[in-house]
Amino acid sequence: MTTNTFDVTTRLAALPTAAISDALDSLGVHATLHGLAPLSYEFRTAGPAFTVQYEPAGSERGSVGDFLDDVPPGAVVLIDNQGRTDVTVWGGIMTEIAAARGIAGTVINGVCRDVSTSLEQNYPLFSRGRFMRTGKDRVRLVAVGAELTINDVTISPADIICGDADGALAVPYAHAERVAEIAERIEATEARIIAAVKAGSTLVRARADLGYHDLQWRNA
Amino acid sequence: MTTNTFDVTTRLAALPTAAISDALDSLGVHATLHGLAPLSYEFRTAGPAFTVQYEPAGSERGSVGDFLDDVPPGAVVLIDNQGRTDVTVWGGIMTEIAAARGIAGTVINGVCRDVSTSLEQNYPLFSRGRFMRTGKDRVRLVAVGAELTINDVTISPADIICGDADGALAVPYAHAERVAEIAERIEATEARIIAAVKAGSTLVRARADLGYHDLQWRNA
Amino acid sequence: MTTNTFDVTTRLAALPTAAISDALDSLGVHATLHGLAPLSYEFRTAGPAFTVQYEPAGSERGSVGDFLDDVPPGAVVLIDNQGRTDVTVWGGIMTEIAAARGIAGTVINGVCRDVSTSLEQNYPLFSRGRFMRTGKDRVRLVAVGAELTINDVTISPADIICGDADGALAVPYAHAERVAEIAERIEATEARIIAAVKAGSTLVRARADLGYHDLQWRNA
Repeated sequence: MTTNTFDVTTRLAALPTAAISDALDSLGVHATLHGLAPLSYEFRTAGPAFTVQYEPAGSERGSVGDFLDDVPPGAVVLIDNQGRTDVTVWGGIMTEIAAARGIAGTVINGVCRDVSTSLEQNYPLFSRGRFMRTGKDRVRLVAVGAELTINDVTISPADIICGDADGALAVPYAHAERVAEIAERIEATEARIIAAVKAGSTLVRARADLGYHDLQWRNA
Repeated sequence: MTTNTFDVTTRLAALPTAAISDALDSLGVHATLHGLAPLSYEFRTAGPAFTVQYEPAGSERGSVGDFLDDVPPGAVVLIDNQGRTDVTVWGGIMTEIAAARGIAGTVINGVCRDVSTSLEQNYPLFSRGRFMRTGKDRVRLVAVGAELTINDVTISPADIICGDADGALAVPYAHAERVAEIAERIEATEARIIAAVKAGSTLVRARADLGYHDLQWRNA
Repeated sequence: MTTNTFDVTTRLAALPTAAISDALDSLGVHATLHGLAPLSYEFRTAGPAFTVQYEPAGSERGSVGDFLDDVPPGAVVLIDNQGRTDVTVWGGIMTEIAAARGIAGTVINGVCRDVSTSLEQNYPLFSRGRFMRTGKDRVRLVAVGAELTINDVTISPADIICGDADGALAVPYAHAERVAEIAERIEATEARIIAAVKAGSTLVRARADLGYHDLQWRNA
């Protein structure tokens, strides 16, 4: 990671995905990954994307996971298996190695296996669920480091993937600083609204006084 | 809450939704909310419904959550967002305020965000899942305090919403006393069946001896 | 259970379903039960199947759970309710009795209720989810001890059902010894791969050196 990427990742890592999503909304950027959930509510991750694309295997022998040696520490592995839930593209060996190498987490448009290893290692996995049947010989790695499109969100390797209990999203690198800045402002405002209500204000008044309804509007 | 509502809510709050559902079956009342699950198995709630209806926003600016000032302590907020899972209608600020005000819980035909806040505050949320993208400006509040229909169950504001690890249901106010009475009887009978089997009876005999199979029949 | 069944069940119980699934793959056997998940990541089970088939009830009065007296200790109850999620075929009384009798667990192609009892008793339940509405009078028990087909997997009563955090599968009895043997070998190889990578090898080299990619091939 460059210093810039490191700095903005650190800021995004401290923010809830809810505030990041609101900041993205205010810039008119759609980047939330619908349907991808953490295996545990405790899991959080943030880091530049290391993108991996799978497709169903044809007659050729498949290849799962050999890209792992190339993932830099701090990155989030983002795997697109086209939403398939019947075969896995991440398992226990990969979790063990990724955790040992300081990889920040893995987000899968598809499913993983060896949930227990992920929980034991406290290695953050986000997916459409889990199953035990391997994708090896059922799927084929077609690209590493290429742009991915998951649902209707396009993600480049420089983009920063963030995940928490609410799910995962991809902050486009070009907007990352601005997103962090707006999201930090949203968090501060929300804290003030909560304090005002706990001190006796109505929610309507607190939100109006603090300009909450303008926070997610474009050009906020 | 009136004294009556308070009393019957207290009785229903002590019962599992399974026994309440059986009692409703015995009266021929359909009131279970399919697909709405607690965020945590630890969550339980019971209280009269405070109903909120959303629909997709058109060109008008949306409005999320300003009804919260009007929810009385002890009520369960019941929100119908028509089963949508791509935008949220409840989040962290609302959880903080609802918990502080003694609101009993929130049940959503849709999704919520800020799961972590709900878990930290031990504030019971039931939903179709969670996501981080706000519904603000995507949905529009169309009615508060009106009758709702979720799947094929119609719920009025006086009805009592109950939720536990198995999900959520809506006890019609007119039946609430009778439902509590039958459900208490079911619970007592089930405890006797378990005791009889643990003391050596077969399950078939214990159920027959204790009239279990008649418990959920109409006019039980 | 015969001595043989007991021995192979004990070996399978010690293995993750991921390794068992890989061993089944190597023999060309399809036996994973897609969509059936444990209620808790802590749950593990293994035992010969006690098969139960339900279908929607017609005009006759239903019958739920009276087979339980006939389930031997150590067996896994495998219930096919045809994937229905709107009515349950297992609940708290059955959990209490099954746990007290040493039944190894219950796997349902459908849903269960009384999740709290299952968690309190640490009784392993696998299902498509949970709901509180009883199947009694809505479903009808049509066969006990017969062959079942769940999705595209056919299961006989002698087959051994295994479940863990990743889900559940059915090891055909005729293959059970061979499956255990191959799965044990897979586990040992995976442990060596992880050790090699932690000692400095690349994953690509460790997998090649240890023949990992051949492990799941037929006739491995």
